[in-house]
Amino acid sequence: DPKLKIFALNSNKPLAEKIADAVGVKLGKTSVDRFSDGEIRINIEESIRGDQVYIIQSTSAPVNDNLMELLIMIDALRRASAKTINVVIPYYGYARQDRKARSREPITAKLVANMLETAGATRILALDLHAAQIQGFFDIPLDHLMGAPLLADYFLTHHLAENAVVVSPDHGGVTRARKLAEFLKAPIAIIDKRRPRANVAEVMNIIGDVKGKRAIMIDDMIDTAGTITLGAQALVDAGATDVYASCTHPVLSGPAIERIEKSPIKKLIVTDSIALPAEKQIDKIEQVSVGQLMGQAIKFIHENKPVSPLFKNRFH
Amino acid sequence: DPKLKIFALNSNKPLAEKIADAVGVKLGKTSVDRFSDGEIRINIEESIRGDQVYIIQSTSAPVNDNLMELLIMIDALRRASAKTINVVIPYYGYARQDRKARSREPITAKLVANMLETAGATRILALDLHAAQIQGFFDIPLDHLMGAPLLADYFLTHHLAENAVVVSPDHGGVTRARKLAEFLKAPIAIIDKRRPRANVAEVMNIIGDVKGKRAIMIDDMIDTAGTITLGAQALVDAGATDVYASCTHPVLSGPAIERIEKSPIKKLIVTDSIALPAEKQIDKIEQVSVGQLMGQAIKFIHENKPVSPLFKNRFH
Ligand SMILES: Nc1ncnc2c1ncn2[C@@H]1O[C@H](COP(=O)(O)O)[C@@H](O)[C@H]1O
Ligand SMILES: Nc1ncnc2c1ncn2[C@@H]1O[C@H](COP(=O)(O)O)[C@@H](O)[C@H]1O
Repeated sequence: DPKLKIFALNSNKPLAEKIADAVGVKLGKTSVDRFSDGEIRINIEESIRGDQVYIIQSTSAPVNDNLMELLIMIDALRRASAKTINVVIPYYGYARQDRKARSREPITAKLVANMLETAGATRILALDLHAAQIQGFFDIPLDHLMGAPLLADYFLTHHLAENAVVVSPDHGGVTRARKLAEFLKAPIAIIDKRRPRANVAEVMNIIGDVKGKRAIMIDDMIDTAGTITLGAQALVDAGATDVYASCTHPVLSGPAIERIEKSPIKKLIVTDSIALPAEKQIDKIEQVSVGQLMGQAIKFIHENKPVSPLFKNRFH
Repeated sequence: DPKLKIFALNSNKPLAEKIADAVGVKLGKTSVDRFSDGEIRINIEESIRGDQVYIIQSTSAPVNDNLMELLIMIDALRRASAKTINVVIPYYGYARQDRKARSREPITAKLVANMLETAGATRILALDLHAAQIQGFFDIPLDHLMGAPLLADYFLTHHLAENAVVVSPDHGGVTRARKLAEFLKAPIAIIDKRRPRANVAEVMNIIGDVKGKRAIMIDDMIDTAGTITLGAQALVDAGATDVYASCTHPVLSGPAIERIEKSPIKKLIVTDSIALPAEKQIDKIEQVSVGQLMGQAIKFIHENKPVSPLFKNRFH
């Protein structure tokens, strides 16, 4: 029987530890550091010949370094005769360039998929890809997990679901909001940003009823937090009693933390798909872990069981 | 007739300008910067449909960023219907992991070759690859230029070739030293590092006659400068009158500059395959440009002429 081994690269070791705990194994021995000139040096310190290997790596910032660590690790594992190379990517970076929106744009989400396959990945385990279509960028099996059940759990266990309305911050995210609303047994609303004429400020038009209700916004990722904080203000202006926000991937770059601090958002609930450095661990942000979820998924994959039951229901 | 276009990415714009000058074209309009979260944003600001495109990029430090810029640019050009995508890599990083020296090591030089091909490169123009075998890592045409004729030119025009001996700093570099010696009409010597017993300091044994001669060391790259500066001292100890060093690729990481300053090396002659930041532009270092050489090579490739005559003779 091939052994299950889990290796963590540098992007998110705390989550990797939780995943390994959930699976019931110790993280494999490896060191990933730099040569003097900045090139990545990987040392796999135990045999993996014939093993089923899982690598945990988010391609969050510094995205190019984290992606190259992953590609080089896959290359090393393949040449060391791993039986399968299962790439667990809690946060899949470069996902927003997933189509040619303008002439001569790259499609980085596909480029990264091609790189992973060319390096030797045999399977992908992802969480809330920016677009579900990215699944089709791969020709190897991909399991796609959802963070919404975990975020729902937070709101339910903190008794925040009563008198709530789930709000999608834009019309692209309605399906996701719908999902969370199902778990919370709440109605939905949509913020519809519109620019009435060119060179005129955007107007935040709220579709649905939020007056006198607790608004719970959900998105797949929050990057500079512009959309979510402007949306929060619009919800308050429309009579929401209080505003919560949630997302799977706390990218939180540039002015994000400052904007969240200044906004009327009471709490922002995120997962640990991206590790938060100390300066981003502010009181307003709560992190719920996807460690159990991803660990369970790895066990199911290893036992050849379908992964989908893990997110058909709320996840405990 | 398809147009020849040259685009520069961020690693070495001064060299790219020189190459474009030598070819007699202006650099293509493009901007390569970052999104807020650090992901690379590329904007190609002119049509390249049906064109023969040359991209100039060294995968020097920061190697992962420079490599990803290159891959994303190739992806964008391919999707924008470039006729050919010719990747000009003055310095090919990740080249030293070119074989499995130990168990479970990656072969990054091959991984990078695969990445470039998968992204859509149709041809490579390289300069002094760390190992000539890396040519075989590609399944697309590759032209391989040599820096030695340019370095030879420096020594000849500065009248340093008289009474000189060309020294290879290790037994791996003898062929390269032989080449330079041919141009300089000088004999060669080899520094043979040996550890007499385990846990005993290395002994620098010089094979060949250096006493009373000007020693000119040559290597493909100088990284931390340990080998070259120890070698220089050994040459002085063996009676060399003065010591020069030269290499194609000035990687110069970590303690390199300090070691060179302190060493008996009189001058270090390098090319501009890697752009030197201000703090590395010290008096002891002279840069000769490969701009003309690479520009000529691009012209020859574009005109379907063989590139090899460019380094059969000294290059002017
Ligand atoms: N890392 C990034 N940061 C900000 N914007 C991005 C990033 N990557 C892609 N984009 C842009 O985001 C847009 C797609 O976002 P979306 O409509 O949410 O899928 C495209 O116009 C992209 O050019
Ligand atoms: N970026 C790097 N910096 C220093 N050493 C490296 C680097 N990449 C690979 N190496 C090591 O250098 C050795 C190969 O160097 P060489 O014998 O000169 O080809 C191998 O043992 C590699 O592990």
